[in-house]
Amino acid sequence: MKRQIISFIILLLLSVSISGQRRILKIPDLDGYVSLKCDLHMHTVFSDGNVWPTYRVYEAYRDGLDAIAISDHLEYVPKREFIPIDFNAAWKIAESSASEANIMLIHSAEITRDMPPGHLNALFITDGSLLKRDSVYDAIEAAVKQGAFIQWNHPGWKAQEKDGIPKLYPLHRRLLQNGWIHGIEFFNEFEYYPKVLDWCIQYKLAVTGNSDVHGIISETYPRPKEISRPMTIVFAKERTQAGLKEALFAGRTLVWANDIIGGKEEYVKPFFYKCISVGKPYYENNRNTYIEIANKSDIPFTLVNGPVGAPETLKLEPNSITRVVLGKKVAFPLIYDVKNVLTRENSVLRVEIKY
Amino acid sequence: MKRQIISFIILLLLSVSISGQRRILKIPDLDGYVSLKCDLHMHTVFSDGNVWPTYRVYEAYRDGLDAIAISDHLEYVPKREFIPIDFNAAWKIAESSASEANIMLIHSAEITRDMPPGHLNALFITDGSLLKRDSVYDAIEAAVKQGAFIQWNHPGWKAQEKDGIPKLYPLHRRLLQNGWIHGIEFFNEFEYYPKVLDWCIQYKLAVTGNSDVHGIISETYPRPKEISRPMTIVFAKERTQAGLKEALFAGRTLVWANDIIGGKEEYVKPFFYKCISVGKPYYENNRNTYIEIANKSDIPFTLVNGPVGAPETLKLEPNSITRVVLGKKVAFPLIYDVKNVLTRENSVLRVEIKY
Amino acid sequence: MKRQIISFIILLLLSVSISGQRRILKIPDLDGYVSLKCDLHMHTVFSDGNVWPTYRVYEAYRDGLDAIAISDHLEYVPKREFIPIDFNAAWKIAESSASEANIMLIHSAEITRDMPPGHLNALFITDGSLLKRDSVYDAIEAAVKQGAFIQWNHPGWKAQEKDGIPKLYPLHRRLLQNGWIHGIEFFNEFEYYPKVLDWCIQYKLAVTGNSDVHGIISETYPRPKEISRPMTIVFAKERTQAGLKEALFAGRTLVWANDIIGGKEEYVKPFFYKCISVGKPYYENNRNTYIEIANKSDIPFTLVNGPVGAPETLKLEPNSITRVVLGKKVAFPLIYDVKNVLTRENSVLRVEIKY
Amino acid sequence: MKRQIISFIILLLLSVSISGQRRILKIPDLDGYVSLKCDLHMHTVFSDGNVWPTYRVYEAYRDGLDAIAISDHLEYVPKREFIPIDFNAAWKIAESSASEANIMLIHSAEITRDMPPGHLNALFITDGSLLKRDSVYDAIEAAVKQGAFIQWNHPGWKAQEKDGIPKLYPLHRRLLQNGWIHGIEFFNEFEYYPKVLDWCIQYKLAVTGNSDVHGIISETYPRPKEISRPMTIVFAKERTQAGLKEALFAGRTLVWANDIIGGKEEYVKPFFYKCISVGKPYYENNRNTYIEIANKSDIPFTLVNGPVGAPETLKLEPNSITRVVLGKKVAFPLIYDVKNVLTRENSVLRVEIKY
Repeated sequence: MKRQIISFIILLLLSVSISGQRRILKIPDLDGYVSLKCDLHMHTVFSDGNVWPTYRVYEAYRDGLDAIAISDHLEYVPKREFIPIDFNAAWKIAESSASEANIMLIHSAEITRDMPPGHLNALFITDGSLLKRDSVYDAIEAAVKQGAFIQWNHPGWKAQEKDGIPKLYPLHRRLLQNGWIHGIEFFNEFEYYPKVLDWCIQYKLAVTGNSDVHGIISETYPRPKEISRPMTIVFAKERTQAGLKEALFAGRTLVWANDIIGGKEEYVKPFFYKCISVGKPYYENNRNTYIEIANKSDIPFTLVNGPVGAPETLKLEPNSITRVVLGKKVAFPLIYDVKNVLTRENSVLRVEIKY
Repeated sequence: MKRQIISFIILLLLSVSISGQRRILKIPDLDGYVSLKCDLHMHTVFSDGNVWPTYRVYEAYRDGLDAIAISDHLEYVPKREFIPIDFNAAWKIAESSASEANIMLIHSAEITRDMPPGHLNALFITDGSLLKRDSVYDAIEAAVKQGAFIQWNHPGWKAQEKDGIPKLYPLHRRLLQNGWIHGIEFFNEFEYYPKVLDWCIQYKLAVTGNSDVHGIISETYPRPKEISRPMTIVFAKERTQAGLKEALFAGRTLVWANDIIGGKEEYVKPFFYKCISVGKPYYENNRNTYIEIANKSDIPFTLVNGPVGAPETLKLEPNSITRVVLGKKVAFPLIYDVKNVLTRENSVLRVEIKY
Repeated sequence: MKRQIISFIILLLLSVSISGQRRILKIPDLDGYVSLKCDLHMHTVFSDGNVWPTYRVYEAYRDGLDAIAISDHLEYVPKREFIPIDFNAAWKIAESSASEANIMLIHSAEITRDMPPGHLNALFITDGSLLKRDSVYDAIEAAVKQGAFIQWNHPGWKAQEKDGIPKLYPLHRRLLQNGWIHGIEFFNEFEYYPKVLDWCIQYKLAVTGNSDVHGIISETYPRPKEISRPMTIVFAKERTQAGLKEALFAGRTLVWANDIIGGKEEYVKPFFYKCISVGKPYYENNRNTYIEIANKSDIPFTLVNGPVGAPETLKLEPNSITRVVLGKKVAFPLIYDVKNVLTRENSVLRVEIKY
Repeated sequence: MKRQIISFIILLLLSVSISGQRRILKIPDLDGYVSLKCDLHMHTVFSDGNVWPTYRVYEAYRDGLDAIAISDHLEYVPKREFIPIDFNAAWKIAESSASEANIMLIHSAEITRDMPPGHLNALFITDGSLLKRDSVYDAIEAAVKQGAFIQWNHPGWKAQEKDGIPKLYPLHRRLLQNGWIHGIEFFNEFEYYPKVLDWCIQYKLAVTGNSDVHGIISETYPRPKEISRPMTIVFAKERTQAGLKEALFAGRTLVWANDIIGGKEEYVKPFFYKCISVGKPYYENNRNTYIEIANKSDIPFTLVNGPVGAPETLKLEPNSITRVVLGKKVAFPLIYDVKNVLTRENSVLRVEIKY
């Protein structure tokens, strides 16, 4: 009998170990801040997800994230016939794995209602069970009492908004007046809602973007070369949960998902210039001047509306140098619009290219 | 309230749907038999696995398998603090998904003991809860009473056999005498045990090979071109659970895992010839004759010890034609040993190449 | 000195050898015909290409083609400062490699003029030097005298037709009247011209599609899973140059390039049914009937405009099975339009799905 | 006639343009030096290669190299029936493309003789035609007169040394005495010769490693994730041909090819520490301390022979962080041998891991 117990312990150790390598995401810091890569919305078997909570930690570790929130539904627990309801279980289970993997695990839950108000993630809670209330208003209040950061999830989700366009209902306005919404998902899984950018500016909220993964990250985002699961990039004063929380409440974020960046100009503009460096002309002939633009980040940028004498469009691929052939009379700086960096519902980032 | 219920139903439908394409595995049938591709050993959150049972069905569907056995441990249930023990739950949960996905789901459980006898899968059971007995002998007897096919799993697993070499203990001999072992894993996850081939011949057992997956199949076997999760190929009279069971008890199997084939010569030899076709010479010059050998299967074959005038080694890659340049005096058939097709502990398949 | 000569011979043998595996393209035959996979347009250093002629043979061998035409420009020879003009050199150089690789190498040249008539490939010529004439009319006549098949290349190439739309100029009509155009490229490199299908029906010409490669095939078509360089599929009575030539003059062809098929309905319709097989219902419940459609070819098909009770759209991926969930009252056959199979400028193939 | 000329010019521009992105190789600089990534040995159609010279420039551009040497054979010109001999042609043809692509193109030629002395690359020559001499001694002298850097190529090439082991023949010793050998290939194409490291130390030569490519780089080194064509990394005072030449003559080099690094300890040791950074412990429990080691380079490192309490082996994958679980009593620094970094025939680099 003793031998049997021993081999069980071996199995147990195997099942919780985090192995393999952790990707280094090439995401620059901003001056004075460390860039924390976060996925603030994901599910496990404790609601309608397909994996055990520690698997979310393993995925985040491998993908180079700094922080994740496991946010199982409070009101939608389809596996309860087999798994008894426990709104803190996922966090309890995954917490030590997260510590060992250098991942910050944010204790969270998803308040899951019809629209309005739709779905809201309560992040940085202390007891999920207190959020299960008949009234959504009471549920949010209970979360706020725990100091939670309230994120309005996928406001234009077509299952709740047929036209895919997010709308501010009176209930949302009341929550905003109370200071009970602190961030809104601009990006969720595969879709994004440009209007969210304007609301985040108007109401001083954090722009967020997350996977909302139910299945397997590597199968949901199966890119041959680069993983680009959606993430909220948070500019924190330090790499701690307290630092992360302070930065989220202060709205110092942007979103990266596949080839889309969204965020307030005050953050995406310096972020762009941290990603890009422009070299001096390395060659000239009687027709042209040649320069190189290096993009040392993992994020692609597409520059459009270039000036006369410069390319109309420049694709700055991740971890790549782009050769730019200029006419002899072109004047620096070169002004471009960055097509894939959204700063408002109807605006993209404008940048100056100069060496 | 009504709207809320409706959106829950939408969520529910999403969570159980099997979507995407099903791979066609290029595995030939044998004359008179259909080749069923099976994984007879896998785990879920109901023991120490990381996924919900329906995910195993989805993986099998995508990978082109015909049948799977979810075989959670009876004696090792590390998640029982959160998931109450139910030895039939995984089967109950996944059964309708399997039907909808055209996957045969074999009701199973893993009897999980120290060596001897080690771990044994009971396949085709009717009630897993009856197999939870203090005595392993009683547990196996209970399974046999349900008509189970008993598979001895990973007999050389290093956690139980330090030298990695499987051994027949007195308890195994007793079980064999009783007719209570019907198959042995030649291959498990990433390792294989050549000695198993001799035992399967001697005791008239089925040779099996399985993933024993605990995590995610696509992350465990991440090949860039071809999926090659381990599988037991069963030569059945018909594609039904009854047909599969009859064939397993009759021992009509072989194992394919990555680039290894193992099985009895009576099955692997005709199987090899079904995979391969040899063309007539298509070109001759004064030095050489040129022929092509087509391998229309997904399985690579490595032929070695070629005759004088022919290449010493021939790599017949999957879904590929190999050009063979022969000396003018070479005599057909060309005799080769197939290095990666094991028929006994110390034998590989010998084949004749002729057109 | 003798040793030096020997090592040179070793080098020489290495440089002409065709090594590695030949892909088996999953392209079905039609009843009574063998499907020959051909690329009838490519370049080498003997005009403005970047590789030595034998490399084209190697690429075709690896990609599983049956026949290729190296068709260097007659009137555009930008490397002539370093490589003396010889319009038969590429064919002479590559011919023995092709024989050894079981590739049919079609002796060819590209008559390269402004529009009209644009560029025309003369295939199956005997002496390219006789085609270098001041008058394009004389050049074509010289090719026809050698028994050439004349293919009008990329009729809508934007360097010659700014709007990208091919046009029949009086010179083309005259050539057609003479019987001096025998095929037209529907597909070239990355672009296609639907109008060509109508012309090929009206004038009884072969529909062709080719790479027109100047660089490296694997870098031009770098698909992670499947190579899909453009190809003309020719339905020949036998796999010989004579068989290929007869079939081309008879117009028994279709074109496959990436996810586009183009051709006359009389060939693409039976070809589609050879690629696809429909299984009997394998499962029913009170709402639905489940069937599987297998696509055993390397070609994807996208079916649209499905009937009520069946999916609006069906993506039949290559080498994959598609699960189809039908309403209980749906009537067979299911009529679909195959969106990616073009039969005329404004028509796609209509098919019946039944088991 | 005029229109025809215009379209030819369009074609011409296309054929010489360098397009697409340039990879950023993650290769750190050393203090005071810039790391130049070089391939000092490659072939084109002007000897026994398969591509036009400008293609080598394009490949180097895409792969992020700084400098290349096109080194066609002087004594082996198998295409001379079709391409007249011109030992400076490849350089003349590719030079302007190289300038436009920010690639330093080193004028070179390969003196190609039986062993001894085997093959030698003359780099930084001014006129290749003067190196075609009956006597190899005269040929080398002619190169040296032009200021050439003489690299002894693949000294253990099995076509010239049956046992694959490089040997110093009397002729080599005489050349070394003359100061006529300045570097030796430690790595060539796919193989390497550890003994070369000792000779480079003894005779104060540069250690080099190159592709010697005849075909296509991307097909010769087809790694799914990372290109790792062999390269000589040169530590130069400035990124100019003069800077490169000075550094080569000074022997400030190392070689990276796939997962092998070779070079003198004085360069590989600081290079290793520039690639790696070690973090402070981020977590402790009662059994273990956890640290992270970041490898920000594209080069994998395999550390072996770890101390008690630390992992025996550490795989530091490129662009990845490795989590290290240490016993509580382990003492820093951790001493490891870097298995894949060779410093002498029988030595690997020993490193200290500390934070």
